[in-house]
Amino acid sequence: MAKVAILGFGVVGSGVAEVLRENSALIKNKLHTDLELKYILDVKDFPGNPFQEFVIHDFTTIERDLEVEVVAETIGGTGIAKEFTKRAICAGKSVITSNKELVAEHGCELMGLAQKHGVSYLYEASVGGGIPVIRPMKRCLAANEITEVRGILNGTTNYILTRMIRSGISFREALEEAQANGYAEKDPTADVEGLDACRKTCILAALAFGRQIHPNQVPTEGITRVTLADVAYAASRDYKIKLLGRAVRGEDGSVRAFVAPHLIPGSNPLSAVEDVFNAISVKGNAVGDVMFYGRGAGKLPTASAVVADMMEAVVYRDRPKYLDWEEGGPDTVVSPDDIPGFWYVRGQTDIDVFRAALGDVLPLANSGAPAGESAVLTPAMPRPELEARLSSVELSALFRVLGD
Amino acid sequence: MAKVAILGFGVVGSGVAEVLRENSALIKNKLHTDLELKYILDVKDFPGNPFQEFVIHDFTTIERDLEVEVVAETIGGTGIAKEFTKRAICAGKSVITSNKELVAEHGCELMGLAQKHGVSYLYEASVGGGIPVIRPMKRCLAANEITEVRGILNGTTNYILTRMIRSGISFREALEEAQANGYAEKDPTADVEGLDACRKTCILAALAFGRQIHPNQVPTEGITRVTLADVAYAASRDYKIKLLGRAVRGEDGSVRAFVAPHLIPGSNPLSAVEDVFNAISVKGNAVGDVMFYGRGAGKLPTASAVVADMMEAVVYRDRPKYLDWEEGGPDTVVSPDDIPGFWYVRGQTDIDVFRAALGDVLPLANSGAPAGESAVLTPAMPRPELEARLSSVELSALFRVLGD
Repeated sequence: MAKVAILGFGVVGSGVAEVLRENSALIKNKLHTDLELKYILDVKDFPGNPFQEFVIHDFTTIERDLEVEVVAETIGGTGIAKEFTKRAICAGKSVITSNKELVAEHGCELMGLAQKHGVSYLYEASVGGGIPVIRPMKRCLAANEITEVRGILNGTTNYILTRMIRSGISFREALEEAQANGYAEKDPTADVEGLDACRKTCILAALAFGRQIHPNQVPTEGITRVTLADVAYAASRDYKIKLLGRAVRGEDGSVRAFVAPHLIPGSNPLSAVEDVFNAISVKGNAVGDVMFYGRGAGKLPTASAVVADMMEAVVYRDRPKYLDWEEGGPDTVVSPDDIPGFWYVRGQTDIDVFRAALGDVLPLANSGAPAGESAVLTPAMPRPELEARLSSVELSALFRVLGD
Repeated sequence: MAKVAILGFGVVGSGVAEVLRENSALIKNKLHTDLELKYILDVKDFPGNPFQEFVIHDFTTIERDLEVEVVAETIGGTGIAKEFTKRAICAGKSVITSNKELVAEHGCELMGLAQKHGVSYLYEASVGGGIPVIRPMKRCLAANEITEVRGILNGTTNYILTRMIRSGISFREALEEAQANGYAEKDPTADVEGLDACRKTCILAALAFGRQIHPNQVPTEGITRVTLADVAYAASRDYKIKLLGRAVRGEDGSVRAFVAPHLIPGSNPLSAVEDVFNAISVKGNAVGDVMFYGRGAGKLPTASAVVADMMEAVVYRDRPKYLDWEEGGPDTVVSPDDIPGFWYVRGQTDIDVFRAALGDVLPLANSGAPAGESAVLTPAMPRPELEARLSSVELSALFRVLGD
């Protein structure tokens, strides 16, 4: 018997309670013991809720209860969530989290504390909802030198871009539709400005390359500047615009991490990832490319990842704990600008101007384009060189193109 | 320090040796100890090979060497591979395998033996090459009741079908091209008749549903009867023909497993899996659909999965061992015929005959069709009902259609 507590009874927290109840028989069968919910911590009461009997308001009750072996933190943020996480760990409890912000900002510190106290700090649910990606990277790809991780990490922005591409509605209309469908929050900033994708990119980068990568080290551009004109130009050569988080390892071991809209060729499986789905592609020196795909958010998918981590913490309670990554530092991440990528540029200029400045460009078509506008795909070059060569052109859009 | 041996110095075995050598520093870093190759067992010598010094011919040397903790079995088949596996396990060594035939036929027996001797029998590399799928199913999806596993599990057939679809060449021509490129063996029977996919389906089904499923319990149809006409009819409604292995759980806990060509709608991500790539889609009651994608075969991808399992066996050497599944029995698998699927039928008959027999059918088009031929997608019904209704029609083709 292992008793567990849930911190925060929101969407994910209530999903964890449901999965624990709904799938209790199969969990017991796989775990060879019960996983029994004892407390749910929340500031509110939930009269009439089937789990109301578990709800308490004082974290100290959980902290002091020696029966509670595992705590699921689904509060979010880096305030009280961090305090409770530390106190639970110091009280000898494993902590499972879906809190990407906390892992991205303080993952190394919290794993170090867990190691010191001989417990686990697990975070599979923090990236990709229920899609298995953290543990496969840690275990199944363990024999690989990982060279790049790239992913469609935010369902809200992917939904908006999919609607723009498929139905030709504007960013603003697609955002309103996403809000009406519950796919976007009232304040969509963290999603549409790329902050959510940035945090997940930090976690994947840290795991792949062994160093804490802080969100403020990762240049982040959202999708608010993607227009229907860009979507149409991209489509003329079978490209789709998607928001990618990427972490690339240089040959010298340096890490370049960034979040930005990319034009993705139809031949790349990431281009087929639509609506609220997420996908994470990992490149290893032995395995080549592998991709993990599924719903990147949602109550039960995310909750099922939390519960699987709870089971893992119980099964491996006696195993020595190691850090998944170490502290980084200001010099861990270098600018992605020197990666000689291909680029998409659009501007109020003739195509010959692009050709003169950039050489062998690939023209794109858009039947609805205003007179005098053109857009091209450029040869591979670093961004500073591109900007220098186009210093005299007024650009309306500049996005990366995924090369392979 | 953990010493290891490789049984069989073929494609995968030599890949394992290469990954151990090439990535030794990162393996040591993650494992907190060395993984050191001590022997390679093969009947042949390999003069001039960089690993020739490790090659021995007598299994007894490995069996009796107490230093050897982990053995990688990459021999294949169910003969000597099974004998060496049992002897290694009885000698207290964990065994890692890429041998899908052995796991599909005798997985439960070998895991039981390993449990008895307190060692691991791991088989991540037996399905999907380097694609992480076994461990994610065991661990990350552990909190889910799995309801279906379906996959494009054989790279050779997927390459052939992709060539037929993309370039309009016949099955025979595509097979010859695959052989010329090294994607198909000289005797392609195991691939094109679906036997390889059948074995992998058995392994996935056993893992998902907890019972050994034997290949002879799984109705298996290969791709030799897929024609360019079928490809063209399917394309007229944005379907692609792919060979799927499927294992479906009935509400009563019964299992239906089968391998057959399917028409897959363009909206399903499996339809975008091309060339030699594999993909496995798992449906769980909490997580919904997740998909794992990558190269399903090849020397280094498969080897990297073997080496990751070797690392796992060392890390978790002291953990209690459990069976991933139990013995099944003749009544474990029931016929898939009663699944009320949609069907693709083609025959020398008028479309009105299909309509009269089946009701509301969806006509398919093929500009090159011979006079008097037609093809349709049917409403959902079990196969016996379909065949009864069409008893008076001479069918040229009958394939399943993937519904969702």
